[in-house]
Amino acid sequence: MTAVVYRGARRLEIHDRPVEPPGPGQVRIAVAYTGICGTDLHIYHGDMDARVGASAVLGHEMSGRIAAVGEAVTGLSPGRPVTVMPTRACGRCAACRRGNSHVCHAMDFLGIDSPGAMQASWTVPADLVLPLPEGLPLDRAALVEPVAVAVHDVGRADVGADDHVVVVGGGPVGVLIAAVARGRGARVLLVEPDPFRRSVAEGMGIGTADPRATDIVALVDDRTDGAGADIAFEVSGSADGVSTAVGVLTTRGRLVMVAIHPRPRALDLHRFFWRELELFGARLYRRDDVAEAIRLVAAGEIPVERLISRVEPVDGVHAAFEALESGGGVMKVLVDWRESAP
Amino acid sequence: MTAVVYRGARRLEIHDRPVEPPGPGQVRIAVAYTGICGTDLHIYHGDMDARVGASAVLGHEMSGRIAAVGEAVTGLSPGRPVTVMPTRACGRCAACRRGNSHVCHAMDFLGIDSPGAMQASWTVPADLVLPLPEGLPLDRAALVEPVAVAVHDVGRADVGADDHVVVVGGGPVGVLIAAVARGRGARVLLVEPDPFRRSVAEGMGIGTADPRATDIVALVDDRTDGAGADIAFEVSGSADGVSTAVGVLTTRGRLVMVAIHPRPRALDLHRFFWRELELFGARLYRRDDVAEAIRLVAAGEIPVERLISRVEPVDGVHAAFEALESGGGVMKVLVDWRESAP
Repeated sequence: MTAVVYRGARRLEIHDRPVEPPGPGQVRIAVAYTGICGTDLHIYHGDMDARVGASAVLGHEMSGRIAAVGEAVTGLSPGRPVTVMPTRACGRCAACRRGNSHVCHAMDFLGIDSPGAMQASWTVPADLVLPLPEGLPLDRAALVEPVAVAVHDVGRADVGADDHVVVVGGGPVGVLIAAVARGRGARVLLVEPDPFRRSVAEGMGIGTADPRATDIVALVDDRTDGAGADIAFEVSGSADGVSTAVGVLTTRGRLVMVAIHPRPRALDLHRFFWRELELFGARLYRRDDVAEAIRLVAAGEIPVERLISRVEPVDGVHAAFEALESGGGVMKVLVDWRESAP
Repeated sequence: MTAVVYRGARRLEIHDRPVEPPGPGQVRIAVAYTGICGTDLHIYHGDMDARVGASAVLGHEMSGRIAAVGEAVTGLSPGRPVTVMPTRACGRCAACRRGNSHVCHAMDFLGIDSPGAMQASWTVPADLVLPLPEGLPLDRAALVEPVAVAVHDVGRADVGADDHVVVVGGGPVGVLIAAVARGRGARVLLVEPDPFRRSVAEGMGIGTADPRATDIVALVDDRTDGAGADIAFEVSGSADGVSTAVGVLTTRGRLVMVAIHPRPRALDLHRFFWRELELFGARLYRRDDVAEAIRLVAAGEIPVERLISRVEPVDGVHAAFEALESGGGVMKVLVDWRESAP
């Protein structure tokens, strides 16, 4: 069966590999669609070679149908549409011992630490497999994973109805955070310089502003009668984004740190002190977040289809990565595996 | 009556001023003791002249007895030992409107924005006056205000029994935070380079470590079986202090920002993301915090007398400021006003 194999920076090869029958407690999935996220792009650039190793199969955003079920698997049967929660916690580290296994220190992340979804047939532990409603189109279902990220982030901030929310950064996760927060009744402003990304968000009914053309802090002050925003999400990964997210917050406002900042950033700790601001790191998701993401996507509450900019065949996987790398004009790119089923 | 008047950087003059009789809703207090805090020292250095102005009377840590009561004041009568909550909120700003009047944006802070306690007779609004138990020595009562700061800070972190707590910075507020946290049953480590300050804390039964001699992160890892601390308080105001406070925290650990950092600090936001850390700014106190501080001091649960390094007469107010400025060998310095009562 067909698999996309990472061979080093910018080298993806299409290999033929044997189908792996499911062992006890495992499920084999015929993959339908896979998505590509920012972490996949980091790997593609060669930035994570020490962790990923040679001959890795990437991919952790996916949908598919069960093709075969191993011994001792209950509640899952062939044909069922599913997605996979790609995180396996160790159960022994300090995070796991204290109920935070979703950010396990020794996480096995499928698609990074062990083989991922970019193969026509993917064999995984049954306890990571989540059934999907039959009526949910499988292209949309491939976006359940980033929606789960957004659900987790919004939960970290405890976003409530009528809260003023500012999302700084309008990539797929930023737009999904904005959409999930709006679904909770919040008043949301998405801050993003790229006009294409803003147009996608606007098409989903999310209000946007261009930080290159607008004084965001002044705009938020104006909208909140001088109070400031209740909650800000930093999803841009930029120094300016951090400044904006801190600057818009009201007294006791909450900042959720979603983006990856590889280097330390200058933070206005005096403002945190003076306004008693709060900062919450947010990473990945719990199983409940994934379940809620499935519900939101299946119910059409988050119109994820608007984020799908392109769908490439397996042969086009290089083009898919390159399109994402160029940044402009694409949001989410999927690879369609349906013709490759073994 | 005698008053200490700030006349500019390092210039404190002892003036004779008329006694101000209490108007309606006011109380006149015969001041017993005043403390000097870090903010007073900033003013003394001339760093806050724009806010404080010329001819200011400093002082917001105090104890005394009611000397006279104005019209329409109930529940307070002459002779009663009292302290004063020195913060008057505007009631109209964004912070006040949302229930955060303790960090009011237009705060009138007695001793900074309006006349403070460094005068033999202090006339203040009755609603800021808190009665003290008769048996509480008035020198100890002058420390109720910094204890209220510590109570507020500990409350911001929701410190619980058996939590591992690291306090970075062992000035008076740091030691009081450590003592209040220990009183809640937490396991506390105070990190402080100054040997005198460490000895004061040790005398109160608080475990300490010298960051110049000990790898604090390794020590905390060792004590917590590799997990890290549940809560850290940054009370040092230093860049190294911030790094230590972030470095010791367990996954989902909470950092309380107590110190003033006038300039932005480099913060490891990736660690906040990766471990889902949380940061809480903490400033001043609510009325409940002051009431709890009075209870803790009166019950002897916080042995504040151990923090009183020196008591100076009014004539020695310069010496008191200079002793604090030198840093070594003093913790809290009080001025004794009892002989100056008009």
